[in-house]
Amino acid sequence: MKKDSTITKKIIRGTFLWTPEPDVMKQQDHGYALIENGILKSLTKELPSDCEDIPVTDYGNAVIIPAFTDIHLHASQYPNCGVGLDKELLPWLNTYTFPVEARYSNAAFAEYYYKKLLNRLWSVGTLHFCGFATVHMESTWQLMQLTQKAGFQAYIGKVNMDRNCPDSLRENTEISLHETEELIHRASSLQNVKYILTPRFVPCATPRLMEGLAALAEQYDLAIQSHLCENTDEIALVEKLHPDIPNYTQVYDTFGLLRPKKTILAHAVHLTKKEAEILCNKNILLAHCAQSNTNLSSGIMPLRQRLQNGIRCGIASDIAAGHTPAMYRQIAATIQTSKIHGFLHPEDAPLSLTEAFYLATKENGNFFGNTGSFEPGYNFDALVIPDAEPDSPLQRTPYERLEQFIYDGDDRHILTRYMQGEKMEQPFPE
Amino acid sequence: MKKDSTITKKIIRGTFLWTPEPDVMKQQDHGYALIENGILKSLTKELPSDCEDIPVTDYGNAVIIPAFTDIHLHASQYPNCGVGLDKELLPWLNTYTFPVEARYSNAAFAEYYYKKLLNRLWSVGTLHFCGFATVHMESTWQLMQLTQKAGFQAYIGKVNMDRNCPDSLRENTEISLHETEELIHRASSLQNVKYILTPRFVPCATPRLMEGLAALAEQYDLAIQSHLCENTDEIALVEKLHPDIPNYTQVYDTFGLLRPKKTILAHAVHLTKKEAEILCNKNILLAHCAQSNTNLSSGIMPLRQRLQNGIRCGIASDIAAGHTPAMYRQIAATIQTSKIHGFLHPEDAPLSLTEAFYLATKENGNFFGNTGSFEPGYNFDALVIPDAEPDSPLQRTPYERLEQFIYDGDDRHILTRYMQGEKMEQPFPE
Repeated sequence: MKKDSTITKKIIRGTFLWTPEPDVMKQQDHGYALIENGILKSLTKELPSDCEDIPVTDYGNAVIIPAFTDIHLHASQYPNCGVGLDKELLPWLNTYTFPVEARYSNAAFAEYYYKKLLNRLWSVGTLHFCGFATVHMESTWQLMQLTQKAGFQAYIGKVNMDRNCPDSLRENTEISLHETEELIHRASSLQNVKYILTPRFVPCATPRLMEGLAALAEQYDLAIQSHLCENTDEIALVEKLHPDIPNYTQVYDTFGLLRPKKTILAHAVHLTKKEAEILCNKNILLAHCAQSNTNLSSGIMPLRQRLQNGIRCGIASDIAAGHTPAMYRQIAATIQTSKIHGFLHPEDAPLSLTEAFYLATKENGNFFGNTGSFEPGYNFDALVIPDAEPDSPLQRTPYERLEQFIYDGDDRHILTRYMQGEKMEQPFPE
Repeated sequence: MKKDSTITKKIIRGTFLWTPEPDVMKQQDHGYALIENGILKSLTKELPSDCEDIPVTDYGNAVIIPAFTDIHLHASQYPNCGVGLDKELLPWLNTYTFPVEARYSNAAFAEYYYKKLLNRLWSVGTLHFCGFATVHMESTWQLMQLTQKAGFQAYIGKVNMDRNCPDSLRENTEISLHETEELIHRASSLQNVKYILTPRFVPCATPRLMEGLAALAEQYDLAIQSHLCENTDEIALVEKLHPDIPNYTQVYDTFGLLRPKKTILAHAVHLTKKEAEILCNKNILLAHCAQSNTNLSSGIMPLRQRLQNGIRCGIASDIAAGHTPAMYRQIAATIQTSKIHGFLHPEDAPLSLTEAFYLATKENGNFFGNTGSFEPGYNFDALVIPDAEPDSPLQRTPYERLEQFIYDGDDRHILTRYMQGEKMEQPFPE
């Protein structure tokens, strides 16, 4: 075998499941994944003939799936998971969310919970994420550094908000923009963590702030994340704040925040036809947050309709409005709400497990580049799920074992996590 | 202290949470539970003055809650949790459920999976349950014995079905009745496990079988469990089978299976007004299975309406149509579907966490007698949930910690399980 000292090669063996297309679950039984410098070169049934000298890690009957990506989570709200879900969005924000976010002015508080979060994301196999921090520049920078150190791939942003929020969190517009630019500069030293502009949502951001962020987006070619049309009260508030603009989506567009392929908007439960057209034409990625929309009584987002309208949609935990960061639970929640929508609107078929899995892996991964699938050229970012009951009398297919993991498994069923071909260890001691 | 050698006394200390009423969460901080022969005598803020000599187990900051009761689960379907949920009820039964149930003719198969189930129920804190086995007499008897040995309280029944099912499971009517009576006799030797008559549902039971079971119910004064109005296709099938009887509920009534306070019917998603009246008047307990109804696209059971109509309702996992036996997840699912129902029908308020907790503990427990609450005279059946993060910067109230356990906790958060005042250990080695 010809050796090239600059290339690290390895082979990982197991039964691979992945979704190259929205409705196609591919399976390679006991396949050989050839990985060069963290990138999948080939996935074959037989060991390639020129690979006899490359070390093989054989996971036996384990199922190996792409690692999960979460395209919308509130990193700072992790301590609130499960708390206070008897309220709707706006009272929930004021009672539970804002008071906890205010605590992130304290570095020790931030470090404690951000480490907890990163350990938990690692444990549940979410190795890529787009996260909201808080308005605080320094603790956002802490999160970015901790995330880099832990080895995740992430987009992280300091929240910008300068209206309609408690005094403890309301920013001066110019300082908000200045601190954002400071973080953009600092983030340029990081490899795996990128800055993403993070206006909380229209009710919390003045036109001047939105325009300033749009200017930064252009100047530095940045991604943007925010919220859209989650709740009818919120939509009414946006109408009141911007009576001259026809709808919520066009408020973002007016102020320059709809960047093709670069903007993620969470929720979009209640959209007009016009808004759906704009989101499609602008190639905006919607983060569908099924668990959150149910918890906060926001409504059911008609996911099948959005997909049929040509809008790109991924799925997300939206912790802490979603009550768990585990993306396997979010896949189940997505399927479940699509079933409920389906029996109310029989023209919209529910999503299959394969379709929802695709959204949580390849579609979400598209925002990061080549992750979320086992196609040649993709980063080898993967989770190894051993056969929990190899000697059970009822033999399960690999696909059935994946179904059981998604619906009733937990982090104990994930043996190993790979990031770019390397084993990823628990980030911080507990 | 006066001692009576026939009375074992102990004290357990911790912060107790329980729901004596549907919408009342009571809390006793660092209270003393005095337990005599497994029964709670008092729960007080101070140590009672005559109790200084009684040993105290102090759980510090732990939250202690009543153990869960599951009033509707298919014990034999445990290996199917999470599998095949892309199908609706009738195709799901034929593709996944019946083939696995047929395997319970084999004693080794039955023992393997029934032990797995009982270990899992123990781990998630479900210490009382009403379970369907399969049509097989001997493996049903195995389940009853294993359940007795493990120390659960349970109602267990052999499934009766003699029509509209695969040949491998269809019984001869007379043999079905004979084997049922045999099990009734055998069960009389057990202390904690009771026999419950278990016709699968109307589509699978001939009039002769239903009448025969009703006669056994009268003769031995037995409880009965079955299914009702889960799915519109199923209801149409019942109408076709019994064109002379006005509705599904009255089919059970006609054949003598609605026994006041003794019959549990699962689902009741789609009821006529007349049926709701009958269920209320007959004091039937409905098992609401939110997760199952969503998974099989059966519909949303209007739980608030049923409760307002005076129908008794508990909640249940319905594994394997529900995908997890964990009752804390079923509480969350109950709240979530009630929220979705609530935004479609604003006149029906969603259930609060307190209300859903009440259903999973005290209301379900009512079927067993005095379990599911911490009122004097109740069995001390309890779960100890330690403070997972005693040194965290954000101090949580006991109620908030309960919320987090319900929504995002798992069996690792349950330190100890008590059955009638005694620690219950994992039933079987793994």
